[in-house]
Amino acid sequence: MYAIAIHGGAGDLPRRMLSGERAALYRDGLASALDSGYEVLERGGSSLDAVTAAVGVLEDNPLFNAGRGAALTCEGAVELDAAVMEGRQQRAGAVAAVRHVKSPIELARRVMEKSRHVLLVGAGAEEFALEEGLALVPNAYFRTPERRAELDALRGGRAASQLVPSPQGTVGAVARDAAGNLAAATSTGGVANKRTGRVGDSPIIGAGTYARNGACAVSATGRGEHFMRIVAAHHLCAAVEYRGLALQEAMRETLARLGELGGSGGLIAVDAAGRIAMDFTTEGMFRGARDSAGLRQIAL
Amino acid sequence: MYAIAIHGGAGDLPRRMLSGERAALYRDGLASALDSGYEVLERGGSSLDAVTAAVGVLEDNPLFNAGRGAALTCEGAVELDAAVMEGRQQRAGAVAAVRHVKSPIELARRVMEKSRHVLLVGAGAEEFALEEGLALVPNAYFRTPERRAELDALRGGRAASQLVPSPQGTVGAVARDAAGNLAAATSTGGVANKRTGRVGDSPIIGAGTYARNGACAVSATGRGEHFMRIVAAHHLCAAVEYRGLALQEAMRETLARLGELGGSGGLIAVDAAGRIAMDFTTEGMFRGARDSAGLRQIAL
Repeated sequence: MYAIAIHGGAGDLPRRMLSGERAALYRDGLASALDSGYEVLERGGSSLDAVTAAVGVLEDNPLFNAGRGAALTCEGAVELDAAVMEGRQQRAGAVAAVRHVKSPIELARRVMEKSRHVLLVGAGAEEFALEEGLALVPNAYFRTPERRAELDALRGGRAASQLVPSPQGTVGAVARDAAGNLAAATSTGGVANKRTGRVGDSPIIGAGTYARNGACAVSATGRGEHFMRIVAAHHLCAAVEYRGLALQEAMRETLARLGELGGSGGLIAVDAAGRIAMDFTTEGMFRGARDSAGLRQIAL
Repeated sequence: MYAIAIHGGAGDLPRRMLSGERAALYRDGLASALDSGYEVLERGGSSLDAVTAAVGVLEDNPLFNAGRGAALTCEGAVELDAAVMEGRQQRAGAVAAVRHVKSPIELARRVMEKSRHVLLVGAGAEEFALEEGLALVPNAYFRTPERRAELDALRGGRAASQLVPSPQGTVGAVARDAAGNLAAATSTGGVANKRTGRVGDSPIIGAGTYARNGACAVSATGRGEHFMRIVAAHHLCAAVEYRGLALQEAMRETLARLGELGGSGGLIAVDAAGRIAMDFTTEGMFRGARDSAGLRQIAL
């Protein structure tokens, strides 16, 4: 049994704002990422390789809020965050507030595998990227006209969802491979109009990303500050490990706690048996799931 | 009932390396911080004010690895991290990789109270500090000859503990006030010889710092990467809230999980009833505790 699930952000974008053509582009983008990750699992690859591959595809797609097409800071720049974790030894790597790294998830993985650290931020993270030979690109590579319009709308006091058909969220993936190992990965541009230097839940191990064999692997999307305050991904994982809650039940309870603080968003997770759960308290969540039992689903 | 506990770092510094005179200086520093926090509680102040005050005293004391006297990066600079959280509404604020903010814990508190965000890093965090009118100082303000010697020893391949009688750790405080509200605060220069941009567990809500009324408030010290991977502070808090473990038992179990990954360190916590626990798996932990029932303890 092997399985993968992905998300491309949760938000309150009215589904009617998504035209048929645009919805088809999002579905294509999700399908491409989902299948990239699944193919890794199918040929016997690790869950770690699968989630890295799937998230990398979404980073390169300008429709999603990660890598190219990421949301803009209040100063109109892109600052990117990402994290990856594997469940067997619970190794983890993360980066935050990087401006020139083409694939933040690839850099997060290098932090995990090649450094003594878990989290590197800012210019120090980019110094490490250069040492590792990763591609750096100008900040303008990440910026799109749609994100500029979104920022202008927000700074003009208008609700961006009325104007720009972009989900606010983050991208992520969780997987279980045939060997039973779990992994999770998340990548984001963060919330539009954020302060320079703001870091959300995505690169925070335990908040937006977590994996532990025997329990589950989790990736979150939504307003990051609330996920950080309840340590959402670890809360879900601990509920499965220690309280014996089924994955879906643990997820509902985590989203309910988020709601107690006034937060909303979505979660995807896979448990030790390869069961997938995907749930959200926003109007929608771009998501997909595929497993070796024949499931293949894409939904907005 | 009100209570406060503090730590000034955990490490494997042989206690015999601490001369009587130097040990007395550490005891004085801890006592000064402990009493500053306790006095806030005694005059009816909040646990949030108490932990901020105690940690601020330790930041200003060059004997401890936070604020002035912090450990140096591999490039010989100081980069500081801090976080604060209150347990009633579970609001939190944190900063990481700041180089010029005299009191990182004060800035973390401003992030909690004055921004829409939980975590700000680097130059963006310092921009916010300037907007808030906080004092900025040259990086040299934080650097001490002892820390330079420590870095030189580490970069020369020698164990710093053989040469420099400085604990590797972090400072922190937890408190319960008379109103029953919990709070936690942590501040650090991180691990000596760290990469530029490395962020440890201290400013990560759930890893090095956590508070939730009805459960407990926690601050951690030790090799941060391991605390991040097990989400130590939240793990402890969830064990108290959901598994009904007593505070001391939950703490031992959290340190045992840390040990499974090869990590070591210390934790301090206070529960909803004002009971204090302080434990560590290193050779020592600088610590202190005081409560309204008459306890007053300082230990190295």
